[in-house]
Amino acid sequence: MAVYGALDIGGTKIAGALVDPGGRLVVRSSRPTPAREPAEVLLGAVHAVLDDLSAHAAWADLACLGIASAGPVDTVAGTVSPVNIPGWRRFPLVERIRSHPRVPAHVTPVLIGDAVAMTAAEHWLGAARGVDNALCMVVSTGVGGGLVLDGRLHAGRSGNAGHIGHISVDLDGSACPCGARGCVEGLASGTAIAARALAAGWTPPVGSAATAADVAAAARRGDSIARAAYDRAAQALAAGIAATAALVELDLVVIGGGVAQAGDTLFAPLRRWMSRYSVLDFARDLEIVPAELALDAGLIGAAAAASARTAAGTVRSGSAAVPSPPA
Amino acid sequence: MAVYGALDIGGTKIAGALVDPGGRLVVRSSRPTPAREPAEVLLGAVHAVLDDLSAHAAWADLACLGIASAGPVDTVAGTVSPVNIPGWRRFPLVERIRSHPRVPAHVTPVLIGDAVAMTAAEHWLGAARGVDNALCMVVSTGVGGGLVLDGRLHAGRSGNAGHIGHISVDLDGSACPCGARGCVEGLASGTAIAARALAAGWTPPVGSAATAADVAAAARRGDSIARAAYDRAAQALAAGIAATAALVELDLVVIGGGVAQAGDTLFAPLRRWMSRYSVLDFARDLEIVPAELALDAGLIGAAAAASARTAAGTVRSGSAAVPSPPA
Repeated sequence: MAVYGALDIGGTKIAGALVDPGGRLVVRSSRPTPAREPAEVLLGAVHAVLDDLSAHAAWADLACLGIASAGPVDTVAGTVSPVNIPGWRRFPLVERIRSHPRVPAHVTPVLIGDAVAMTAAEHWLGAARGVDNALCMVVSTGVGGGLVLDGRLHAGRSGNAGHIGHISVDLDGSACPCGARGCVEGLASGTAIAARALAAGWTPPVGSAATAADVAAAARRGDSIARAAYDRAAQALAAGIAATAALVELDLVVIGGGVAQAGDTLFAPLRRWMSRYSVLDFARDLEIVPAELALDAGLIGAAAAASARTAAGTVRSGSAAVPSPPA
Repeated sequence: MAVYGALDIGGTKIAGALVDPGGRLVVRSSRPTPAREPAEVLLGAVHAVLDDLSAHAAWADLACLGIASAGPVDTVAGTVSPVNIPGWRRFPLVERIRSHPRVPAHVTPVLIGDAVAMTAAEHWLGAARGVDNALCMVVSTGVGGGLVLDGRLHAGRSGNAGHIGHISVDLDGSACPCGARGCVEGLASGTAIAARALAAGWTPPVGSAATAADVAAAARRGDSIARAAYDRAAQALAAGIAATAALVELDLVVIGGGVAQAGDTLFAPLRRWMSRYSVLDFARDLEIVPAELALDAGLIGAAAAASARTAAGTVRSGSAAVPSPPA
C-alpha cells in the first residue's frame, strides 16, 4: 500500500509523518525548530525528521512527499521565506529536501503554504469534505486561508492564494506590518483582539499573558470590553469572508486556529456581521463552521496536496471516496 | 463553418450576433430594451432579435448560443433579475429563449453575467489573451468584474464570481444600496466620482449632466477637486484589486467601462495606490491595462463562453489560437 510523506514546517516545530491513503498517520516524528539558527542548522532539523521517517519500513512505499511550510512560500521556485524563521529567505527547501539521501529520485517534493495545507486537509478529511467551493481559514496569532474552487485546491500560481489575512477591509485604517492598511489580520488576529481589549481598559487575570483566550474567557463571563474586542474581530472577518464570497462564490467557510477555539464568542457575532456584509443573493446565508482537524492538519494537508499532484497519488479532489477518518 | 450565437441583454439595448470562430461578427441585430415594460414585452424584444439572426443563412451552422445579461443572474436556474430591468425578477430567460421556434433542440443556451462575458471576451481576443489568471473589470455607472483562473473563466457556481463592485473596502463606510457598507462601487463608480466632486464644490460645465467624464475633463485641466475625486476612486479600486490578487493570485488586471476612458486620470493614481495596497511578494507589481474590446465585448464574450461550454465549440481557454481580431 502506498504511503504519502508529509512535512509540516512551522516556527516552533518541524513535524513529519507517513500518511496512509485513508489519512491515518502511520509514523510520525518531529524536532523543535531552531528558529534563530542559520539556514543549514534549520535544514539539519528537517533532515533529522526525514532520517526518522525513512528508517521506517513503510518508507519503501513512498508515493509522494508534501511539504507544508509557514509562508510566504514560492511554489514555482520551490523556496520558502517564513516570517518567523529569519534564517530562511528564499531558501531552496524543495531542492534541499530532494537532496536527502533517502528521498527516491522519482519523488518530487510538493511545496504548499501552511494555510493552503490546512485547506487541503479539511477538504480531504475535515469540515469541507465533498464541498466544491470553500474558504478555509486559520485565525490565530495571524490570519491565513486557502481556497477550494470547483472541487480542487486553488493554491495560486505561487502557492499563496487564499491570503485573506492581508486584504484591506478598512482602506484608511491602521498600517499593517505587510505595508498595506486596514488588513483583516490587523483587526481579527488573536494579537489584535488582545491589544484591542487592553487598549479599551480590559484587565487581564493576574499573571496571565493577556492572550485572546483570556479575552474570550472574560467575554464568556459577560465582560463588555472583551465582547467588543471579539465583535470587532468578527466584523473584520465578516467583511473579508464576504469579499471572498463575492469574488469567487463559496459554498462553505471553515475556521480553525486558536481564536476559533473561542467558539460562540467568535462565531455568534461573526454570523451576525455576515448578514450585514454578505447580502448579495448568491452570497447570502453562507455556512460558517469550525475546522475539524486541528492537530495534524498541516501533515494531512501536505500529504493530500502531494498525492493529488503526483501521478501515483490516489487522493482526488472533493468527492474523493475516503473510507475512514484520520487517526 | 460553425457560428456561435450571442445575445447581450442590457438596460438600454438588447443586442444579438452570429460570431465566427475567429471572433468576427457576421450578422448583428438589436432592439431598444423596453426596460419599464412587463416581462413578456421584454421577451418579445429578445425574440425579435432572434428572429433577425435566425433569418440569416449562417443560422444553419449554429453550434451554440450564449447569453450575456445584466445581473444578478442565476446560471444554475437559468434566471435573470437585472437591477435596471424591473420587469424581470428570476425570469427564466434560458428556458424562454430555448422556446424560440428557430432555436435548434441540440443547442442549450449558456447564460453568463455581463461582466463575466466581458472577461471571456478579453480573455479570448483582448487584453487578457493567453493570460492564466486575470481580473477583468468594468468601471462605469456600476463596478463589475470577472475572473480567469488557471487559464479558464471562473464564473462561479451561479455565474456571479468576480463581483468586485460589492466587496467592502471600508467596513465602517457608507451604506451601499446592496445592503453592505463601504463597497468598491460606492467609492469608485462613475456615479460616485461625480457625486464626490460635486459634494466637494466642483462646478460642472454649464448645461452638462455632471458626469464622471466631465470630472475627468476638469481633472485633465488641473482642477484639484476633480483630481481628488479620481484619486479616491483609484484608492478604492486599488484596495479591491489588491484583495483579489491576495485571494486568488493574478497575472493581469484589465479595466474597461466609461470611467476607464479617463485614461491616466484614473490609471496613474490607481498604479500609485496599488503600490500601497498590493505589497505581498506574490502580488507586487501587478500589471493593470485598459480593456481592448469596448463595443462588442458582451456579444463576443457570450459567444466565447457558449462555445467553451459546448461540445461542438472550438474556442478553448487561454492559449486558444485565434487567427484574427474581432471585426
